[in-house]
Amino acid sequence: MREPILLPLDQPELETDLAGGVVRRTVHPSGLRVLTERMPSARSASIGFWVGVGSRDEQGEREDAPGSLGSTHFLEHLLFKGTPTRDAYSIATSFDRIGAEHNALTAKEYTCYYAKVRDADLDDAVTVLADMVTSSVLDADEFEMERGVILEELAMAADDLADVANERFFEAVMGEHPLGRPIGGLPETIRAARRDDVASHYRDRYYPSTLVITAAGAVDHDRLVERVLAALDLSPEERWHTGRAAVPVRRAQTGAESTGADRAASFAAASGADPSVRITARPSEQVNLLIGAQGLRANDPRRFAFGVMNSVLGGGMSSRLFQEIREKRGLAYTAYSFGASYSDAGLFGMYAGCAPEKASEVVELSRLELQRVAESGITEEERERALGQIAGSSALALEDSDTRMGRLARAELGSGELYDLDASLERFAAVTAEDIRGIAAELAARPLTVVAVGDTARSTLSATAE
Amino acid sequence: MREPILLPLDQPELETDLAGGVVRRTVHPSGLRVLTERMPSARSASIGFWVGVGSRDEQGEREDAPGSLGSTHFLEHLLFKGTPTRDAYSIATSFDRIGAEHNALTAKEYTCYYAKVRDADLDDAVTVLADMVTSSVLDADEFEMERGVILEELAMAADDLADVANERFFEAVMGEHPLGRPIGGLPETIRAARRDDVASHYRDRYYPSTLVITAAGAVDHDRLVERVLAALDLSPEERWHTGRAAVPVRRAQTGAESTGADRAASFAAASGADPSVRITARPSEQVNLLIGAQGLRANDPRRFAFGVMNSVLGGGMSSRLFQEIREKRGLAYTAYSFGASYSDAGLFGMYAGCAPEKASEVVELSRLELQRVAESGITEEERERALGQIAGSSALALEDSDTRMGRLARAELGSGELYDLDASLERFAAVTAEDIRGIAAELAARPLTVVAVGDTARSTLSATAE
Repeated sequence: MREPILLPLDQPELETDLAGGVVRRTVHPSGLRVLTERMPSARSASIGFWVGVGSRDEQGEREDAPGSLGSTHFLEHLLFKGTPTRDAYSIATSFDRIGAEHNALTAKEYTCYYAKVRDADLDDAVTVLADMVTSSVLDADEFEMERGVILEELAMAADDLADVANERFFEAVMGEHPLGRPIGGLPETIRAARRDDVASHYRDRYYPSTLVITAAGAVDHDRLVERVLAALDLSPEERWHTGRAAVPVRRAQTGAESTGADRAASFAAASGADPSVRITARPSEQVNLLIGAQGLRANDPRRFAFGVMNSVLGGGMSSRLFQEIREKRGLAYTAYSFGASYSDAGLFGMYAGCAPEKASEVVELSRLELQRVAESGITEEERERALGQIAGSSALALEDSDTRMGRLARAELGSGELYDLDASLERFAAVTAEDIRGIAAELAARPLTVVAVGDTARSTLSATAE
Repeated sequence: MREPILLPLDQPELETDLAGGVVRRTVHPSGLRVLTERMPSARSASIGFWVGVGSRDEQGEREDAPGSLGSTHFLEHLLFKGTPTRDAYSIATSFDRIGAEHNALTAKEYTCYYAKVRDADLDDAVTVLADMVTSSVLDADEFEMERGVILEELAMAADDLADVANERFFEAVMGEHPLGRPIGGLPETIRAARRDDVASHYRDRYYPSTLVITAAGAVDHDRLVERVLAALDLSPEERWHTGRAAVPVRRAQTGAESTGADRAASFAAASGADPSVRITARPSEQVNLLIGAQGLRANDPRRFAFGVMNSVLGGGMSSRLFQEIREKRGLAYTAYSFGASYSDAGLFGMYAGCAPEKASEVVELSRLELQRVAESGITEEERERALGQIAGSSALALEDSDTRMGRLARAELGSGELYDLDASLERFAAVTAEDIRGIAAELAARPLTVVAVGDTARSTLSATAE
């Protein structure tokens, strides 16, 4: 079986051929890591500056820093607001005048500043991204202005019932685990946020050995490294560099597999109600349902079995959930299953949006379909179709440089193992019917949480969902 | 100036080189048109079956066919439900087992059945799409099941306040024009829909000379044409072919530029209220605002001036709306402007989501920014930036085969003129400052409509918006 490419933190240079590209990696003495994947026919490139800090790293509701919840995301906004040599307008025009697709993303375990540009514009994008990440001034007036923008962003998310359901689901399944917190914070923590909270977050977490720069497409590794080093100014005298640990640290890749029972018990104590059903009442036409449990962490060896199982259960129009809920009964427009994985924990969920009066039926159908795979497994025809779906959709996704750019970063920030397409597909193909039944049985045995957001009465769901 | 490629309906074969590809086109004696763009380095292909019929072609609220509103979209759903040789499950598995990105889309002037697949899977995709488009059985039981699915799709859209605002905006700006109707119909017309309405829509509108097949990426034109002809069975005896007009008809490319004043007057008569402000009250955190008027039809020669103007007004982070509403005042997370163009009419709009108590301020700011461009034009620096943005983002978009596949179809179904990137960019570059000020002045002179959806009181907005 083809082995993944290992990315040891103490190996300064690495070069290897992948299907469709050449991967190179440089680890600078400061701890900065640069990874590229050259795609021979590409005329554009995707570049990301990834900082290994996410919302889970915040102090949360600590009494002395009530505003720190949401500070990672607040910081991400502020990095667009100016440096000593570029004001916010200049940063905006730098991207707009080259027609870049650019954005930033705060996740639970990382923050990413991203641009996709024509090949000739890559140097410019690197210069601006490097300036933003290393030299933001976090201006006090801009801080106040951005507080308003973020409150509007939270308001927009609060009006999106699927977004609300997703946040509630993380909270319900992960409980007190820091992965359960909302990435953007809460309106009250954003209103309470102080510039000092965010500035200390920036100071404490952004330095060379937490930064990973990845690029894919029309990119020359040596030229990019040179450009990055010039832009970051990593001389020992440089403020951004001084006194920082030069050895990158990867997150621990192990964790409790499930704390579901404990968590459920603590909800019950708090609410005095059925711990497994959490309802957020909102006027709506549909109720948004999420049914699930704790899942697999990112480098769990069973992730390949989970991938095949998930494809069969809820991965497309021919999947069991789609067939049972939409095609056979017309109960929903959308029905699917998914996994979300982090270094030490993960989630598994099934989603559907349906008429409020059908909510308990849809919840029951979803539980039943999971149960059915857990008890009887899947057919050989389903297994083959899932492998075809994974192979085809992966190949299509990897044609985009941003997919490859993200794959490099997740491997580097995560387990330090880079699986190319062949290495992954061989592992998916090696999954047996019993592996698939086994992972479904494990998930089905965990205490299932049901989150419902929309116009529904608690009693409706409680009647069938225990 | 580089001329567009002309696509005459009476020219059976055409071949021409484009930047990044080779375009070929075949017009079959039946009226069927096949267009391809081969991208030399592509390993995958996008293929679309486009039928030149959209929601605007429905009979609407005709008394003898109350269920025909939404029948185009209903039909699109039903085409996935089975043919004499493939049931719904078989269609679903055909796409899933190759990991295709596939979907269908009903628009106001066309319907599209689409797949993106690896090169080796293109033949399979063609076979299934052809079967779906020509041979759907429109089974009565499936019809009833799908009615429920579509009602859930409408319910989902009704819960999305930006979606609701968009529908209201079309309705308000276009008035009685068929382009003003909601694409999916209304819950009451879907509940009233009869299988016969949809079947007659299918029979009357789907035949060779209304069908355009376009593909881009790793595609061989001759092989595709051969495959398509075999799959469609266009022999003169074939039911799908018999008795149909063999000459394709393009929609008229002219129309009233603005009927705004008439329309506004008729609203006033109906509601007894300010015709320019239309409020849909919903519990929400944000109010979704759309401010705009009738715009340009698709082949209006001023569309290049509009494109530059739109980029400066609301086309990115450095645009005036984003700067004034978000960056300087923190009033919104999102603020942008847009155009939507059809054969004989179009819309122009400005969107923002903001706190209800800020709605009138945001409306006023938006009107003011449009007015400012109308009166004082834009700077040379802004013009250059807009041209850079258009060039860069267009080049990036055209790397995707689906963008090129869609470009072919829009040209064929629309004006019959295909503008490649250079031909377009030359026209954008030729736009003068006065052209830009002129088009803004024209739009600003039209009666502006304001649509607000969310938790706001009518009076708040009426106070400032006339």
